[in-house]
Amino acid sequence: MATVTQSVTEVCLRAREASRTLAALDTATKNAALTAIADALIARTDEILEANARDLEAGRESGLSDALMDRLALDADRIASIADGTRAIIALPDPVGEVLEGRRLPNGLDVRKTAVPFGVVAVVYEARPNVTIDAAALCLKSGNAVVLRGSSSAAHSNAVLSGIAADAARAAGIPDGAIGLVAGGGREELADLATQDQLVDLIFPRGGEGLKAALQAVATVPVIYAASGNCHVFVDADADLEQARAIILNAKTQRTGVCNAAETLLVHAEAAPAFLPDALRALRDAGVELRVDARTKTLAAAAGVDTLDATDEDWDTEFLASILAVGIVDSAGEAILHINEHGSGHSEAIVTRDTESARAFERGVDAACVYINASTRFTDGGEFGMGAEIGNSTQKLHARGPIGVRELCTFKYVVSGDGHVRS
Amino acid sequence: MATVTQSVTEVCLRAREASRTLAALDTATKNAALTAIADALIARTDEILEANARDLEAGRESGLSDALMDRLALDADRIASIADGTRAIIALPDPVGEVLEGRRLPNGLDVRKTAVPFGVVAVVYEARPNVTIDAAALCLKSGNAVVLRGSSSAAHSNAVLSGIAADAARAAGIPDGAIGLVAGGGREELADLATQDQLVDLIFPRGGEGLKAALQAVATVPVIYAASGNCHVFVDADADLEQARAIILNAKTQRTGVCNAAETLLVHAEAAPAFLPDALRALRDAGVELRVDARTKTLAAAAGVDTLDATDEDWDTEFLASILAVGIVDSAGEAILHINEHGSGHSEAIVTRDTESARAFERGVDAACVYINASTRFTDGGEFGMGAEIGNSTQKLHARGPIGVRELCTFKYVVSGDGHVRS
Repeated sequence: MATVTQSVTEVCLRAREASRTLAALDTATKNAALTAIADALIARTDEILEANARDLEAGRESGLSDALMDRLALDADRIASIADGTRAIIALPDPVGEVLEGRRLPNGLDVRKTAVPFGVVAVVYEARPNVTIDAAALCLKSGNAVVLRGSSSAAHSNAVLSGIAADAARAAGIPDGAIGLVAGGGREELADLATQDQLVDLIFPRGGEGLKAALQAVATVPVIYAASGNCHVFVDADADLEQARAIILNAKTQRTGVCNAAETLLVHAEAAPAFLPDALRALRDAGVELRVDARTKTLAAAAGVDTLDATDEDWDTEFLASILAVGIVDSAGEAILHINEHGSGHSEAIVTRDTESARAFERGVDAACVYINASTRFTDGGEFGMGAEIGNSTQKLHARGPIGVRELCTFKYVVSGDGHVRS
Repeated sequence: MATVTQSVTEVCLRAREASRTLAALDTATKNAALTAIADALIARTDEILEANARDLEAGRESGLSDALMDRLALDADRIASIADGTRAIIALPDPVGEVLEGRRLPNGLDVRKTAVPFGVVAVVYEARPNVTIDAAALCLKSGNAVVLRGSSSAAHSNAVLSGIAADAARAAGIPDGAIGLVAGGGREELADLATQDQLVDLIFPRGGEGLKAALQAVATVPVIYAASGNCHVFVDADADLEQARAIILNAKTQRTGVCNAAETLLVHAEAAPAFLPDALRALRDAGVELRVDARTKTLAAAAGVDTLDATDEDWDTEFLASILAVGIVDSAGEAILHINEHGSGHSEAIVTRDTESARAFERGVDAACVYINASTRFTDGGEFGMGAEIGNSTQKLHARGPIGVRELCTFKYVVSGDGHVRS
């Protein structure tokens, strides 16, 4: 235990030291390091696959589920795609040094609110070894040192991947310690890392609710949580019904296992008879299981669509599967109340031609992203023009929604005077 | 204990409900409520003084220190000044609804990053009853419901003050529950409040290190910490020595008990012989106790200035008193290292005519506010043109430095389309 503690602290200490240099590094050096990392991933593909094979073998022995095994598995294509992701980050503008606001005060002092890296960012994740490189690349671009803590099931893969990234970065002029990996994926290391508030500025968890709960119980370092996405599409009384159908089909079925997929469809009672029969048939034909309230059930039955009765729990569930809860409401206000009560503050959509409803929804719904006549599926750093993201925040502190390179920065006020003193 | 828990939860629940309405309130209604609060404070001054007298009596009986008794005490002038502070907040621009960024994506979607209130903000504070009104007014202006938790020593004062504010606000059209007070100032109530992560969006502690440590141990609600201010002034090799002397005198002596006062003076070895004798005499004449390193001691002795030897601890201490640690460094780089090691990330100043040193200091010092040729004493929402502040953040998440009405907002992305779906 003593050794483990020292080792986490040591990784964090080295990251803290590196962060001082990193924060002042020019863009060209950082981009050269990203290129070097991408090149090294390709050049050392065999090494990565070998380490990955050891993780996969251990996973098979310990009986990991097929889904987890799939997340864990790398092949040459996946490695090439990780390298491509790293190269894509080169094209992003460097967020460091951006003057976010600036003004001259009446006394002549110049105040500039300037973007600067956080310093040391810890990323805590499960299974997927690609996060090792994604997180390292985003942190490097934003001038942060990164401390990675993956899961034990991917220990060999993560060690090789982070080693390759650290080697390549160092050779390109990035200080030692800028990309650190915490050995061991246990809860002890998690607690050690989460209490390094003198050395670590911020933790991003990328994983399930268990990981978040574990962090919340122990963390003294600030954490940006990404709650699950229980997202809604609300079809208003006078929605364009073709748009509405396209949007709910897209939001539910374009990809089901993602946090910005819709889990509940709410329909205004006045639109329901015209909208629901066709929409429910289309959803059923797309393989979606429908869990509906009593009024929807009547319409569905008349339309010949089989449904299940929605339970109280269904309205609060992120299915992450081809399942959709469907309910009828009597007003936009009722939809807003339902969403604020059951939603997770991720992505919420209204389909309407009524400007009043649109404004009420925009103002009334408490979520990171509110959509008017568009699918919830656009919540994504790439789609928003922000580039790759390290995660999607559903908490309100610092940044909501996609966390890209700009969101990996804090700011400082730089105040310049001519010998100004306060009177 | 069960009753206490329920009561904290109930206050938070009512605040959460009120927050939904508050978030959409127009500026005129919020400003009218602020006027009503200011008027009511004046009209009900006797009531406030009566409650305050009970707290003062209890304080005397329990042997509160003179300093604490002074913080606790209200009189008609102090109440008038609290009312003035409330009126000053009316003049601030309403931060809610500001479009912080906006763009049209290549696919035609319009994305607007829009400022919105957090929702429910809890303010946890000690002694000073004026915080009750300051916090309520800032939260009201920024569209947030507030949950106040003062100390038990000010229980009567806080109850009357928050009651007056809540009554006046309600009569002016602010929803019930928007200004809530947690009864009881014990650690149990603190823990109850700090774990209301379903209802409370954010906690600001205003108090000493003990309060912060207590919060850090239990909080699951995000907290914006304000660490102490161990602030430095660094006099570079070719500083304008008159400016430097004015700045250190101002930063140290203009007000000693505040977090943006200087606690350590660092002087470049090349400037020390010309600068320190006069500067140390001026500081001594202003009543400042000097705790110095060996090289400074020699210069001080030659100049006939008495000094104490600085201990290791002195470099890490926020004296909040007429005490200054003084040391000599051999380069701007050494000063930056010293500040990053010993500073608390609050306010740090360099006095220099050398652009290279200025740039190195600006980039290298990790603090909320970095000053070039100006006193650290300007770190203040009012001085920065941001209006009144609820505190000064030394953590990096969300906002550093003064927390005013804009910093009491988060944002949401509002995305408008014409039936856009993701392909």
